[in-house]
Amino acid sequence: MNREQLIGLIGQKKSFLCVGLDSDMDKIPHHLRNTADPVFEFNRQIIDATLPYTVAYKPNLAFYESRGIAGLNSLYKTMDYLESFRDQCFTIADAKRGDIGNTSSQYAKAFFSKHNSGFDFDAITVAPYMGEDSVKPFLEFEGKWAILLALTSNKGAFNFQLSEDGDGEKLFSRVLDTAKNWGNPGNTMFVVGATRAEMLAEVRKIVPDHFLLVPGVGAQGGSLGEVAKYGLNKDCGLLVNASRSIIFASDGTDFAEKAADEARAMQLEMAELL
Amino acid sequence: MNREQLIGLIGQKKSFLCVGLDSDMDKIPHHLRNTADPVFEFNRQIIDATLPYTVAYKPNLAFYESRGIAGLNSLYKTMDYLESFRDQCFTIADAKRGDIGNTSSQYAKAFFSKHNSGFDFDAITVAPYMGEDSVKPFLEFEGKWAILLALTSNKGAFNFQLSEDGDGEKLFSRVLDTAKNWGNPGNTMFVVGATRAEMLAEVRKIVPDHFLLVPGVGAQGGSLGEVAKYGLNKDCGLLVNASRSIIFASDGTDFAEKAADEARAMQLEMAELL
Repeated sequence: MNREQLIGLIGQKKSFLCVGLDSDMDKIPHHLRNTADPVFEFNRQIIDATLPYTVAYKPNLAFYESRGIAGLNSLYKTMDYLESFRDQCFTIADAKRGDIGNTSSQYAKAFFSKHNSGFDFDAITVAPYMGEDSVKPFLEFEGKWAILLALTSNKGAFNFQLSEDGDGEKLFSRVLDTAKNWGNPGNTMFVVGATRAEMLAEVRKIVPDHFLLVPGVGAQGGSLGEVAKYGLNKDCGLLVNASRSIIFASDGTDFAEKAADEARAMQLEMAELL
Repeated sequence: MNREQLIGLIGQKKSFLCVGLDSDMDKIPHHLRNTADPVFEFNRQIIDATLPYTVAYKPNLAFYESRGIAGLNSLYKTMDYLESFRDQCFTIADAKRGDIGNTSSQYAKAFFSKHNSGFDFDAITVAPYMGEDSVKPFLEFEGKWAILLALTSNKGAFNFQLSEDGDGEKLFSRVLDTAKNWGNPGNTMFVVGATRAEMLAEVRKIVPDHFLLVPGVGAQGGSLGEVAKYGLNKDCGLLVNASRSIIFASDGTDFAEKAADEARAMQLEMAELL
């Protein structure tokens, strides 16, 4: 999905909500656990319930890889299911990959090339630590996106991302400043956590046009209003992710209904903010 | 495998060679391509040929993930095969993972918990950008290791890893200095590329006791003598990786024999250096 299509989708649904499919087998409702593939069944019902309010889905690879081949199969089925709604949602592999050039090329195939791996995500999250040649291979696929970590929502962000160089520039600013030139606003996004919403103003000075993927609203405590205040640009320019607060809103048989309620509430707030 | 066992293995084989299983389907010899699982067959023969000279094997996840479920199955078979040589080699998942705490816990299960995922690697490579809580979950498994990226062997290392903070400290030094306190030399290693061997002296001032995983000797051009000169410590403290220069030494029917020759040559040089 290209930039124009994504912007169109946001306008049409009046939403910039991304639902994180952190589908932890230990947290999905008990009544699903006897189905043939509980995680897929959970995802399918979550997707059906939240699709009207959601512009993107973001499976978190760790929750699938931790179950080995069975987990990967749940993810393949989920992606096949999402394929039926291809023009109705953007898909992000939250995989935090990144390695030397010839290896990143393989990771790009793993997530973008259906022919090679069976996966055909629109985007993948990428760790910037290894620099330009670790990111470029992800930018060579037409209509695909690399979403680089800049400022994450966790406590560990203080260790390195907020450290300052000799000119007083923080590492995450340096990442934005450098990496924005590797691609363009049509193939690159950045992760900026909602738990540091006030820093979005600083981010917007460096990357006024890029889309930002914003985790940390919901279970992690970030505020949607704050994120919109500092982060919105003329094309919206935001994908705000919520995972646990939506998908695990209830652990009963009403889990999909409750997920829809949470997603709808966020979409209504987003419609106001747009 | 714990630190004492690893040191014992190095002493016994007089080698600190790690063979990288970057087993690219497009590069493995033609005569293997009609076998049931060409990549596993390739890996099996490489392992048989190089085991006497090698203390560690490092499958690069990207080369397996790029082939989807089939690729993962090749990796499972390879790891099952290596299990027969459990006390004869250390195993590293070169996966460059790292995410917020609850997600890194899932990645740790994905690579360390046979019960959950089917994998039981001794170690995994981890990207440090997200800080302490992204690394700690990998340190909670008895006898398992996190190998943190510090200074990588690629050109992109210049983008951020070599940038200096207000005190003139480079980012990779800051990573070493900070992360060495998250665990200890019994569960943490660091990646330091052989292409910057002279910086190993600087690295050894910060982490005199830790093991270092050193890529970049071989196809990437680093020198083993230089690495040993600056990097060896009293327990050896090095695992030097070579991938392409060994596993793709020949693309003919003699590939395993040529791989053994390359590995033996490196082992002989290492025996001299120890």
